[in-house]
Amino acid sequence: MTRMLLFNSTELRAFVAHFFETYGVPAADAAIAADVLVAADERGVESHGVIRLKSYYGSRLSAGLMLPQAELRTLAETPATLALDAGNTLGQPAAYRAMQRCMEKAHQSGLALVTLRNSNHYGIAGYYAMMALEQGLIGISSTNSQPLVAPTYGRTRLLGTNPIAVAVPAGRNRPYVLDMATSIVPIGRVTVFKQRGEDIPAGWGVDGDGHVTTDPDQVLNGGALMPLGGVDLMRGYKGYGLALLVDLFCGVLAGAGFGSQVGGTDRPANVGHCFAAVRVDAFRPAAEFLSDMDALIEELKNAPKELGQERIYIHGEKEFERAEAARLNGVPLMEATVAALRSAGRESGAPFDLTPLGETA
Amino acid sequence: MTRMLLFNSTELRAFVAHFFETYGVPAADAAIAADVLVAADERGVESHGVIRLKSYYGSRLSAGLMLPQAELRTLAETPATLALDAGNTLGQPAAYRAMQRCMEKAHQSGLALVTLRNSNHYGIAGYYAMMALEQGLIGISSTNSQPLVAPTYGRTRLLGTNPIAVAVPAGRNRPYVLDMATSIVPIGRVTVFKQRGEDIPAGWGVDGDGHVTTDPDQVLNGGALMPLGGVDLMRGYKGYGLALLVDLFCGVLAGAGFGSQVGGTDRPANVGHCFAAVRVDAFRPAAEFLSDMDALIEELKNAPKELGQERIYIHGEKEFERAEAARLNGVPLMEATVAALRSAGRESGAPFDLTPLGETA
Repeated sequence: MTRMLLFNSTELRAFVAHFFETYGVPAADAAIAADVLVAADERGVESHGVIRLKSYYGSRLSAGLMLPQAELRTLAETPATLALDAGNTLGQPAAYRAMQRCMEKAHQSGLALVTLRNSNHYGIAGYYAMMALEQGLIGISSTNSQPLVAPTYGRTRLLGTNPIAVAVPAGRNRPYVLDMATSIVPIGRVTVFKQRGEDIPAGWGVDGDGHVTTDPDQVLNGGALMPLGGVDLMRGYKGYGLALLVDLFCGVLAGAGFGSQVGGTDRPANVGHCFAAVRVDAFRPAAEFLSDMDALIEELKNAPKELGQERIYIHGEKEFERAEAARLNGVPLMEATVAALRSAGRESGAPFDLTPLGETA
Repeated sequence: MTRMLLFNSTELRAFVAHFFETYGVPAADAAIAADVLVAADERGVESHGVIRLKSYYGSRLSAGLMLPQAELRTLAETPATLALDAGNTLGQPAAYRAMQRCMEKAHQSGLALVTLRNSNHYGIAGYYAMMALEQGLIGISSTNSQPLVAPTYGRTRLLGTNPIAVAVPAGRNRPYVLDMATSIVPIGRVTVFKQRGEDIPAGWGVDGDGHVTTDPDQVLNGGALMPLGGVDLMRGYKGYGLALLVDLFCGVLAGAGFGSQVGGTDRPANVGHCFAAVRVDAFRPAAEFLSDMDALIEELKNAPKELGQERIYIHGEKEFERAEAARLNGVPLMEATVAALRSAGRESGAPFDLTPLGETA
């Protein structure tokens, strides 16, 4: 385990919001962006947390590649559908408001689907899906992202790690929250193996010839990630199909960038997202639904375990437990992340001067 | 390659429809069921085709476990949502009509979501998703199924191979048609390896202890299939999450069976399905959408190939090509399947007396 420093979650959110405000981001938007980023660290998804504050958000804002504010623009609307344009502002506040609009529509129409084009990296997909839980709705959130994944039988990066997140409320149990990249692992996971000087498992990535490699350097330089499933024998074309599906909804249907067009360090990213919400009681009484959710969750959790394992998890369970611990003990940040925050703070004029509450080994 | 006999697709459909009619299935329903089953063989998905005529459909009809006819009953309805009950009749005609209702609603509301409970095996999920293509809509179809898959860290069969199918129209290119089980392989694939006396690849299935095994017998007797992704290291919990997601929509939301309750040889199967349709022009002009679909499809297909590979496929492409060949040359059936049809025909009083058009090696 890496040594982690623990920070008060309220103070950390305030720092991150202040950081965004120094770039001209309105306070309300800055607070949303801060909440989404710190939520990632609380949930144990460091790769999508405050570590990116300077390298992604600060650098794009200061280069004028991402705007500190813009109005959400409506492109097309029906009672159950909505197509929006984020105006190249931060992904988090734009996505938050798009999901709010989606939930309002779902309350009225039973379900709703909302697309959002001309956006930027929006953090963890699960954040927006989970917004639905507070209103007893099923929530879905997805985004495309910069190309890192090769299609089956290809050897170049053409699709993002394009995550799919779905949150479904339960009764006495915690809700089901799937939040999965459609690649096997994110690129950051390969970087960690490289830093440690270790081989990656065969199947996570390919080299420049499109062949499976265990050398993280080959994946990072000229290679690509593999889609969920991996090689053809293990049905990697299904993961490729899911990554493409995300791009069809978030890129093509939304009218955003798609394929190799998404992202880029010298132009607006034109990331696309989509959101859906479903009113459970449009299909059956909510109490029956919640009771059956509990029955299925408990059947899975109480089932016989693989020899050597003690627990079967429901999706989101580990993250809920980590988030609860973070609220109690502090948000864990790697020392390298803290250093990055200090540097980001100096550059932006929002100094990072939080005192750690403690540390974990 | 197994030797295959080729049959005229119209004659084969007529035989299958006649077979169903001998059990009291109305002609219109029998024609739909025949079309769905033969379409599977045409598309190269033998496991879901006419091979099951006697073993699944005939045996359940004659045992009274599945009813030859029933009206679709509406349980709840809004402009964009619909909850239906199939009355324990054949899955195919019930699903066909549910998807029709779903598309009508999508035309009116921009999108629609329809659930269907108290149903039976409905054949290939992709059939219903593809119905949307004829109307320029995006179509989604999913079903739960008898438990065959163990959750990550589990060792018993708790989830079906729960497929997800999505069809998205394109312009000058063939549409995108994803039709994927959320397990790595179907159970029939393991049986084939057993029949050949071959080991299965490590990761397709687990033994009764929940450990990966290459012995097909261990998977078939007391073991289970693994979800897409396979072991934890390759992120099999994502495939488990997708299989569970299907059960949350098709089982729990629909009010059908879920988890270990689905199927069974001595009771109604209570399979649940769900269907969705999306009107592309609720989000952006259809011509723009189709043009961007072509651009993304062509970017993928024209991209550099893995060394040793000559072609990158879009999902559904292989199946379209097989179906075209089947229309031209005949529907390929294994000799064992033909023997099963003869036996089914004898038993039902609808003799199978088609003459093969030829054979493939």
